[in-house]
Amino acid sequence: MVDDVIDKMLSGQVPALSRLISKIERGDGDVGHIMEKIRPHTGQAHTIGITGPPGSGKSTLTDKLTSHLREQGKTVGILAVDPSSPFSGGALLGDRLRMRQHYLDPAVFIRSMATRGALGGLSAVSKRVLKLLDAAQKDVVILETVGVGQTEFGVMDAADSVVVVLVPEAGDAIQTLKAGLLEVADVFVVNKSDRTGAKRMATDLEMSVMMGPQDDQWTVPVMQTQAHRNIGVAELWDKLVDHRKVLEDSGRLEDSRRNHRREEFFEVIQETVNQQFRTLVSQDADLGGLIARVENGELDSYHAAQEVLSDSVLLQGWFTSLQGE
Amino acid sequence: MVDDVIDKMLSGQVPALSRLISKIERGDGDVGHIMEKIRPHTGQAHTIGITGPPGSGKSTLTDKLTSHLREQGKTVGILAVDPSSPFSGGALLGDRLRMRQHYLDPAVFIRSMATRGALGGLSAVSKRVLKLLDAAQKDVVILETVGVGQTEFGVMDAADSVVVVLVPEAGDAIQTLKAGLLEVADVFVVNKSDRTGAKRMATDLEMSVMMGPQDDQWTVPVMQTQAHRNIGVAELWDKLVDHRKVLEDSGRLEDSRRNHRREEFFEVIQETVNQQFRTLVSQDADLGGLIARVENGELDSYHAAQEVLSDSVLLQGWFTSLQGE
Repeated sequence: MVDDVIDKMLSGQVPALSRLISKIERGDGDVGHIMEKIRPHTGQAHTIGITGPPGSGKSTLTDKLTSHLREQGKTVGILAVDPSSPFSGGALLGDRLRMRQHYLDPAVFIRSMATRGALGGLSAVSKRVLKLLDAAQKDVVILETVGVGQTEFGVMDAADSVVVVLVPEAGDAIQTLKAGLLEVADVFVVNKSDRTGAKRMATDLEMSVMMGPQDDQWTVPVMQTQAHRNIGVAELWDKLVDHRKVLEDSGRLEDSRRNHRREEFFEVIQETVNQQFRTLVSQDADLGGLIARVENGELDSYHAAQEVLSDSVLLQGWFTSLQGE
Repeated sequence: MVDDVIDKMLSGQVPALSRLISKIERGDGDVGHIMEKIRPHTGQAHTIGITGPPGSGKSTLTDKLTSHLREQGKTVGILAVDPSSPFSGGALLGDRLRMRQHYLDPAVFIRSMATRGALGGLSAVSKRVLKLLDAAQKDVVILETVGVGQTEFGVMDAADSVVVVLVPEAGDAIQTLKAGLLEVADVFVVNKSDRTGAKRMATDLEMSVMMGPQDDQWTVPVMQTQAHRNIGVAELWDKLVDHRKVLEDSGRLEDSRRNHRREEFFEVIQETVNQQFRTLVSQDADLGGLIARVENGELDSYHAAQEVLSDSVLLQGWFTSLQGE
């Protein structure tokens, strides 16, 4: 049954793609099956991460980049992730309004996500959705995310090319973040470059790149854009094409895909094992009692964990339940 | 041996506290033992989370709040967490300079952390360090963190009272974050309130609080401060004292501590099980071969995970290694 939906998605049907994304978001039981089925159809898209602090103009840049890509006849998939807005209707609506023209274009697929799930949940779900957009034959898949926190970095591992968007006003705040940004950026964009301080910020970033660890294949460029006026957008895309070519020629694209596959394997194992333990706890009266003692402060969490992990009957039950998965 | 260090820490010796924090950061084998030993000495501190976007003046506010607390004879522990600066020397140095006066005060302990560990790593480590500061008899423990992303929210669960600091300039960016902020804030602070737009932002936040879910015990106040001029800092502290009293009287403080203890138990279990699996993988030739096939794309990650979880010999090995822990 889900195979039908997958076939429809692969043949380009938008409702099928939406349904599969919803399944992934909910963590349905057949997510593993879906990912397995789509795998042979993935690996072609150029996945681009666009990140930066709130207010830097990421969405406008994504919008204009999408227009540019459409003019070149490329199909685009966009995933906007907002880990900081657990229940935000506002952010989603904002995106929809901004991207209005593209919502009517069947060659552009846009999805917003703002979930606050288990730790690592949003990152794992995002990576799966990016693969789905890839399998749905989008030429370019854009991951746009608010902020530059640890969680977002985790998501960015899934992108081939990462664009870090900054604005001149962010000057001081950026100083403290610079080391982290340098680590993650493949391209820097100083957006709203008509504002005061843009040139200084660009020079400053260029200096930081020069003083940072050197890479003989790729020097992180610092681009200046005015996304709202469509200035610098075509140049940004050209740089991204260059970057992708360097990744391919140097073998790094393949290396990073190998890493993703291995990490995904660990994630699936961890998720399953952890979920199964939570289920076990909810069904086991002894464990329930133990946890009540932990909650009351009668028993230390570490002590209790040791007790659980040295209880062979309990572990046996856990592992039996894993095998039943 | 570590018991000596713990005793010294409990008797107020600063180097002992530093050593224990380093142990927690590194994830030494005796972390469980340390946490167990300090547990009876925790629960007295008022733990305050201070969060907000970069540039909102969190550090200055923390600095001035610390001065105010010192005038009242209170001891203070400060943990500054910057999840967005994995290797940042800059952020740490910045904090040190800003907080210079307090570094010479033995009644104030300051620690900065900016680690990019495993998922959930920073959050778990921060929570342990906060407990350690509590056990070290600090009256007030302040957790200052950059950003308002998912990771930081995770850390904020450990605070009794959460202060969300905003600046007038953040107006538009805040709109998209508001739902998330409303969920986490116990007190809003509009800092740099002498700037244009401060009053509008404060009114806007007050409206949002009024339109949000109602709480008959505590209405989230919106304070205006100019931290750099020490304006509004004493009033903020008074509100935080009020909030703590409401938490105590309503039984919420105890509820949330029960939740923390339960979640800590699950975190310890998950960490141990996941680490043990990674160790197992590095030592098991068969598993190594399986992972090589996953990396090459010959075998799907999900398929491979299923294979592992249905392999009883392997699970048995895992399970034995857990008991050896």
